Amino acid sequence: MTERVEPRRPRGMRDILPKNMILRQYVIGVIQDVFERFGFEPLLTPSVELAETLMGKYGPDAERLIYNVRKPRGREKLALRYDLSVPLSRVVAMHPDLILPFKRYQIAPVWRAERPQKGRYREFYQCDADTVGSASMLADAEIIAVIYTILERLGFRRYATKINNRKILAGIGIYAGMEGKALTHLYRAIDKLDRIGLDGVRTELSEGGIPPEVIERMMDLLQIRGDSRSAIAEMMHRLEGVDIAAEGLNELKELIADLDSMGVPEDTYHVDFSMVRGLDYYTGPIYETIVEEPKIGSITGGGRYDHLIEMFSDTGYPATGTTIGIERIIDVMDELEMYPTTLRRTLVEVLVMQFAPDLLPQTLHLAHALREAGLRVEVYFEPDSLRKQFRYASRKGISFAAILGPDEATQGTVTIRNLDESTQRTVLQAKAAALIRNWAHEG
Amino acid sequence: MTERVEPRRPRGMRDILPKNMILRQYVIGVIQDVFERFGFEPLLTPSVELAETLMGKYGPDAERLIYNVRKPRGREKLALRYDLSVPLSRVVAMHPDLILPFKRYQIAPVWRAERPQKGRYREFYQCDADTVGSASMLADAEIIAVIYTILERLGFRRYATKINNRKILAGIGIYAGMEGKALTHLYRAIDKLDRIGLDGVRTELSEGGIPPEVIERMMDLLQIRGDSRSAIAEMMHRLEGVDIAAEGLNELKELIADLDSMGVPEDTYHVDFSMVRGLDYYTGPIYETIVEEPKIGSITGGGRYDHLIEMFSDTGYPATGTTIGIERIIDVMDELEMYPTTLRRTLVEVLVMQFAPDLLPQTLHLAHALREAGLRVEVYFEPDSLRKQFRYASRKGISFAAILGPDEATQGTVTIRNLDESTQRTVLQAKAAALIRNWAHEG
Repeated sequence: MTERVEPRRPRGMRDILPKNMILRQYVIGVIQDVFERFGFEPLLTPSVELAETLMGKYGPDAERLIYNVRKPRGREKLALRYDLSVPLSRVVAMHPDLILPFKRYQIAPVWRAERPQKGRYREFYQCDADTVGSASMLADAEIIAVIYTILERLGFRRYATKINNRKILAGIGIYAGMEGKALTHLYRAIDKLDRIGLDGVRTELSEGGIPPEVIERMMDLLQIRGDSRSAIAEMMHRLEGVDIAAEGLNELKELIADLDSMGVPEDTYHVDFSMVRGLDYYTGPIYETIVEEPKIGSITGGGRYDHLIEMFSDTGYPATGTTIGIERIIDVMDELEMYPTTLRRTLVEVLVMQFAPDLLPQTLHLAHALREAGLRVEVYFEPDSLRKQFRYASRKGISFAAILGPDEATQGTVTIRNLDESTQRTVLQAKAAALIRNWAHEG
Repeated sequence: MTERVEPRRPRGMRDILPKNMILRQYVIGVIQDVFERFGFEPLLTPSVELAETLMGKYGPDAERLIYNVRKPRGREKLALRYDLSVPLSRVVAMHPDLILPFKRYQIAPVWRAERPQKGRYREFYQCDADTVGSASMLADAEIIAVIYTILERLGFRRYATKINNRKILAGIGIYAGMEGKALTHLYRAIDKLDRIGLDGVRTELSEGGIPPEVIERMMDLLQIRGDSRSAIAEMMHRLEGVDIAAEGLNELKELIADLDSMGVPEDTYHVDFSMVRGLDYYTGPIYETIVEEPKIGSITGGGRYDHLIEMFSDTGYPATGTTIGIERIIDVMDELEMYPTTLRRTLVEVLVMQFAPDLLPQTLHLAHALREAGLRVEVYFEPDSLRKQFRYASRKGISFAAILGPDEATQGTVTIRNLDESTQRTVLQAKAAALIRNWAHEG
């Protein structure tokens, strides 16, 4: 062995101790359950991809954040994945025999070498659900229904999914006389609207050489508000004759009708024509969810990307999906104590205590029986005083203790102490599990 | 965007498609459940560690397999974790306030740049359970009980956990007149017994300069066999006066008595004095499980390592635990169809079909209601012929289809088709979920 090293973690990375992992597993469990109820199925891809798979997909700013990986004396240029969408595209391209639509979810870490700050980590989890191989607006509506269902189940009340369509944005550009590169510039400027305001966008576009009258025509359109149906009608009227815009607006109409049939309440989403989503690869509907109370900000982003997979394949695949970022959700739910009260600091339901060394065999038998009955059981390992054992249970947050003394051993009973209520009952060992369960449900 | 790239994966890495992920999640679910029943709680550590944390812990051969990680223009020397034990030790050293014993599990990928071959991957999952902060043999016995419970629940029948104790091996060395470096050499040679046989070990030791009479005295001891209790008694007799050996043998005796009380049958484990386990850091009981039928070989390894954490900390922490390798378990269970028949190729329980476009709103309502009732539901997205929709369900392996035609719509009913049995029934929509559940349980 070697000399002692100071125990340290890489910058921006975390350990998550059991108390917090219990909350985390709860959130991930809800998300996974909702994904599966909507027919999404699990996919696993390696954390490490060939660098060539990732490069050229996210733009230079993002790609500066990608971690390089090398095996010692290895020639392969490897990288830690940056998101779960590009690996999905690679998988689809490598498996032309997949049954379509391919509805997959993946809940997994991604790595980005961003400047660490509160709530932002360099290794963090994404929860993705995507449908590959369907151009139907039903696939898009379903993604929004998935987000709605997850947030409701987690107990969020004030949030909104903003919906837009890249075809409408393209239509606005055409209407204003912009195409190709200029359009990308337009998207980038509008994307900053929330941060820099209308005047900021005006300045940015004007610095990009766009004439003031063109800018004004667009700014006017971007400010169309109101309920989804009337906003769509208004935009339809203003952009009459711009085919691509009409196509996008009709998609939006269809999507909203589907949401209604899917039971997604109207007050949980709205059309926002100034919402762009940063990534270049979106081609149709785009969506982003902002949680307003508690103030978390953007927790999902997604949309339709009908051409991304073509970067790996001759075959075209229409596709749509979303990413849900859980780190901020978990942090905020923890801060605001939004977790179900049944979640405790420990998973352990019963501490089986050691009364005396000669009773150890019977004590271990009892623990075995309680486990067989489905309980999560810890055996106290040391022959300490009962007082010390009780103190351990309470420090750990365990609700029940099982004590098997000489009387209990003779009579085949056990004393179950409810530590939350400071009461206890002696019952037949065969009835102990049921007693604990009943007590736990009452509590 | 950029030119098309050939979609490829790094060498030795895999994608796991849904059909196989369903089996994988089942195995991981069983392991996690058993870990939790024994009172182990989840811990998450980053995939990326500082290189200095890992180096000097596994020996030069192993460390050649560690992947280097760098952030672009980053100075930190980083690495992908090689196992879950060293990160655990780092976590314990960094959190002196942990409540002890700290019983944690972690189910997570590790990375090793080994030569790829069938069933061996460069990114693979380990399932670890460890107890830190207790020197009790109960902690060791519990690890063996955990392994036993997992293998039984997964349906394995012929396997054996070999048990030994490093103190006995040290005692054998002392008895033969070896210490320090020579002892390490002895362990390495014995470790190869299965591969090179008794004569091979003799040759190896003799090449290491150990006199023939010393070798013979040891070979004799290593061959002590029989049931655990009599083998221990025999060794106790032969090594009388070697204190360290007596200590190890008494620990072994205690451990075996505990296993008995914990309900672990005697025919699932045996004492094997020639079992060494490769890693240098073991200090007491060591264990390894071999699955003999189906022929998987070694799937777990573990033991007590009372000094590993001292590499990161001034404080000593007794600790014991095991690693369960799941890749081979999953592969073999798949090959031999050892999975419960309730596991299917898909998680989707019902395909809600599209009868006609004007019935879409009611169809989506129905899908919503079935999901609310807890079923995993896929909606067929395209307005294809029913024949094509049925074909899709059967290709995907979905058992039930829900059809809502005009008659059903008028009457508030739905026709549920059992695709496995080619029968169907029309029921009130509110009763559809119950019908599907009943049918699925019968099947």
